[in-house]
Amino acid sequence: MELYSGHISKLIEELAGLPGIGSKSAQRLAFHLINMPQDKVFRLAKAITDAKENVRYCRECYTLTDREICPVCANGKRDHKLIMVVENTRDLAAYEKTGRYEGVYHVLHGAISPMLGIGPGDIKLKELMERLQGEVAEVIVATNSSLEGETTAMYIAKLIKPTGIKVTRIASGVPVGGDLEYIDEVTLLRALEGRVEL
Amino acid sequence: MELYSGHISKLIEELAGLPGIGSKSAQRLAFHLINMPQDKVFRLAKAITDAKENVRYCRECYTLTDREICPVCANGKRDHKLIMVVENTRDLAAYEKTGRYEGVYHVLHGAISPMLGIGPGDIKLKELMERLQGEVAEVIVATNSSLEGETTAMYIAKLIKPTGIKVTRIASGVPVGGDLEYIDEVTLLRALEGRVEL
Repeated sequence: MELYSGHISKLIEELAGLPGIGSKSAQRLAFHLINMPQDKVFRLAKAITDAKENVRYCRECYTLTDREICPVCANGKRDHKLIMVVENTRDLAAYEKTGRYEGVYHVLHGAISPMLGIGPGDIKLKELMERLQGEVAEVIVATNSSLEGETTAMYIAKLIKPTGIKVTRIASGVPVGGDLEYIDEVTLLRALEGRVEL
Repeated sequence: MELYSGHISKLIEELAGLPGIGSKSAQRLAFHLINMPQDKVFRLAKAITDAKENVRYCRECYTLTDREICPVCANGKRDHKLIMVVENTRDLAAYEKTGRYEGVYHVLHGAISPMLGIGPGDIKLKELMERLQGEVAEVIVATNSSLEGETTAMYIAKLIKPTGIKVTRIASGVPVGGDLEYIDEVTLLRALEGRVEL
């Protein structure tokens, strides 16, 4: 039996497909959207399609951005010889928020996870190695301190060491099992300062 | 300092404006949407605008529906002399899910709450009284068992009693402070069976 009319059911179904939104939340959200002023609803729908249509990978660091080259990579004042490797754009944003990191980034879009079947070829590692053909003084590995993040860090260290380029890992001021984006700025900075060579 | 490019920031901002979605969830959701296949994203955006454009109040019971008259009100087999008053369309759906209620509904779209400044004029009470001009045998008040729901039930009872129409309240099998939509069907049915005259 269908409890709601077609358009409501359809909306609930689409919302329930999003991460962290269960069927009850989807219902609440759907009715909230239906009761919202028309212009706000259209603005949200447009923000969704606009983001999808206009956001792409930065040609240099692979972060998600509106432009061909992201603002960090396009900034001549940043130290382009210093590359911080992060798992995703949210982690990049976490370090940017500290306002104290002067290098650039490389976004992997994932971490190696044998459990989930994610291998080195599934993340932007080849692209990182290509960047190291240029003038690079140090690669700071800032993957999460989870099993996957540590595995990825070790893998990257092994890959880069033969090139002679310095590879460091952010200090374990970051709590084990923690996710970079939920950590306060002071801890993030302490981890950056205390980085050790791998 | 802007952490994300324009379209991403805009999307995060719009998502964070929804109920139950904090700034971290909004970020996660935004990146999930950007990484989703294009057709799924467009389907979601369309479901949102379609629902907003096509969903309206049923002319009879004021539930949210695609049609002028909702399927329950349009169903000749339902007992149109029996009206169950609920706070919102989700609560209506909760009773419909039991599959055992044979009457029709009246959706108030809220409950009286002096705390939130919601008075009798802010919910569909006038519309309920208008419906009672027709042939009605009983009004079952199935507002939530919260303070607001009980206040609304008392108010409705006072309003209807002078008309001589029977007014009942679903039994307090529903746990105090509980929200109808989260309650199992057996309890909902028990509450319906045990209803007492107000």
